Amino acid sequence: MSLRTIWWDSEKRAVAMIDQTLLPERLETIEVDSIDGLCEAILALRVRGAPALGAAGAYGLALAAARSDSTDPTALLQEIEKAAEIIKGARPTAINLSWGVDRVMRALDEIKASDDLDEIRSAALKEAESIAEEDVATNRALGDVGTSLLEDGDVVLTHCNAGRLACVGWGTALGVIRSAVAEGKKISVYACETRPLHQGSRLTAWELSEDEIPVTLICDNMSGMVMREGRIDKVIVGADRITKDAVFNKIGTYSHAVLAKAHNIPFYVAAPISTFDLDSLEKDVVIEERDADEIRRLGDKQLAPPDVKVYNPAFDATPLELVTAIITERGIYRPPEMPDVG
Amino acid sequence: MSLRTIWWDSEKRAVAMIDQTLLPERLETIEVDSIDGLCEAILALRVRGAPALGAAGAYGLALAAARSDSTDPTALLQEIEKAAEIIKGARPTAINLSWGVDRVMRALDEIKASDDLDEIRSAALKEAESIAEEDVATNRALGDVGTSLLEDGDVVLTHCNAGRLACVGWGTALGVIRSAVAEGKKISVYACETRPLHQGSRLTAWELSEDEIPVTLICDNMSGMVMREGRIDKVIVGADRITKDAVFNKIGTYSHAVLAKAHNIPFYVAAPISTFDLDSLEKDVVIEERDADEIRRLGDKQLAPPDVKVYNPAFDATPLELVTAIITERGIYRPPEMPDVG
Repeated sequence: MSLRTIWWDSEKRAVAMIDQTLLPERLETIEVDSIDGLCEAILALRVRGAPALGAAGAYGLALAAARSDSTDPTALLQEIEKAAEIIKGARPTAINLSWGVDRVMRALDEIKASDDLDEIRSAALKEAESIAEEDVATNRALGDVGTSLLEDGDVVLTHCNAGRLACVGWGTALGVIRSAVAEGKKISVYACETRPLHQGSRLTAWELSEDEIPVTLICDNMSGMVMREGRIDKVIVGADRITKDAVFNKIGTYSHAVLAKAHNIPFYVAAPISTFDLDSLEKDVVIEERDADEIRRLGDKQLAPPDVKVYNPAFDATPLELVTAIITERGIYRPPEMPDVG
Repeated sequence: MSLRTIWWDSEKRAVAMIDQTLLPERLETIEVDSIDGLCEAILALRVRGAPALGAAGAYGLALAAARSDSTDPTALLQEIEKAAEIIKGARPTAINLSWGVDRVMRALDEIKASDDLDEIRSAALKEAESIAEEDVATNRALGDVGTSLLEDGDVVLTHCNAGRLACVGWGTALGVIRSAVAEGKKISVYACETRPLHQGSRLTAWELSEDEIPVTLICDNMSGMVMREGRIDKVIVGADRITKDAVFNKIGTYSHAVLAKAHNIPFYVAAPISTFDLDSLEKDVVIEERDADEIRRLGDKQLAPPDVKVYNPAFDATPLELVTAIITERGIYRPPEMPDVG
């Protein structure tokens, strides 16, 4: 089994993770042994991706419990609660981070009557480990469901990184590809580099190369040309949120979806049930705009006039009419058909 | 009048040009006083863009003539001829470079009978200056023709740099915008950054900012979103070559054209008559693939695994069905209507 993105190192009593900011130059793991260290890792995007952040939040509380010097259960629980607030504050809009934290807090609620420190510590860790295991299991199930859509020899275009680096392991869009490859199908991938933060070239191209799945890197603006040249059989992307009428995903997804439609190429979204938010509509969602210098600069290189106006939305919305099917761990849904997530 | 992209510096007897590799960080002009120096400037893309390269080739022969130590006309002409071959070899696929060189050689043919060294020198320079003047005049005419397509308040999306930096002055796609602004229309621009070489962010955003034409920089993958949001009224791009069935232009143009069609946004191409090659079809044109490291690296930054496979076509082809109109110095042509360039 390949390295997970984030895990508990019981020997060092620390949260261990791949430092994704160093990829693709170096594969290094770091051990985080304080809540401050965890928050720094989240803010610096050493760990990123919705499912991975859920696990990061949960492991953070296991860390707070393990490292506490408290000698009585009430003080320990108070310390964990304080850590929960701090972690959630690190990226307040990352819904999965809060979700992971809250799930551990609920597990602790059930044992608050206990006065055994070790019981509290092991309950926090146990719930965090469950979240991590469930994430891998969900992605595996999703991958196995999705593989029916891929044929031997298919060439798949993807955008951003919906791979194991965005999750604890396996991945969503790339999980479907991994499941198909595990079944013996030959699949190759065109990875769009994904400006401005290059998750496609830095992370997706790296992951697939590691797994020896053939991958060709292109700029985002080449997707139309490769489709027109007949190089692409299917498009599969992940999702950050799925409302009643649209799929929110990394900026650029919508352009690929329109292009896929124009070339009669199926456009698939791979996302766990937890991504669905069917009480909302596209118009209810505010798309976050990120820093202009993500586009104007790269490293020490000035790519544009330093004060030029920039529009830098982090996500876009793809209306469901452009989505051929959504692949979940529960099955495949062809819009307007949607899962019952009540 | 703003600085030209390339010109003859008679005091220094040198070809002067804006060093485009330093933009947008620094606006610096360099003087090239040898054929080797000129070839280096062309190869390093200090001067680029089809029309600008035509002038560069022509000025190169004026330089060879001016700097020669030959004392008899035959030796001087031989030296110029040798320079012509060297310059054309610098970028053999750049058709305009050869065109500029050949045009000066033809002008010299007419005076070969003469034995006056100064007459040869001034004939070479005169023809080079004519080419430069004609380029500006053509672009001005093209701009004035195209302005009828722009309304006061229009927001125009463009790709790459079809501006004055690609020409001797004024520009083609940006020339149309400049002409409209000169007429008193308020025009604003969304400039796509144009991966992998960032001509949109480095050059277009810079030129428009210099001219105080409002410009917003976006990543190429955002064009679909900005069109869907209703931010774009028209798309205008340049062209490297127009065949009987397609427009060849910077990679990414085709994706924007499909997206424009899907959003009912007019898609205009601005190009001088010299760009038309109506004896050829799309299938006759080989699209040059450029170095993989243009996508894998940027400056000292590794953006992708160093050995990952890359597809990096320099241009793409947009079928004429997606082109609303082609703007030339002779008038506006709505495909399938095309100019008579016989």
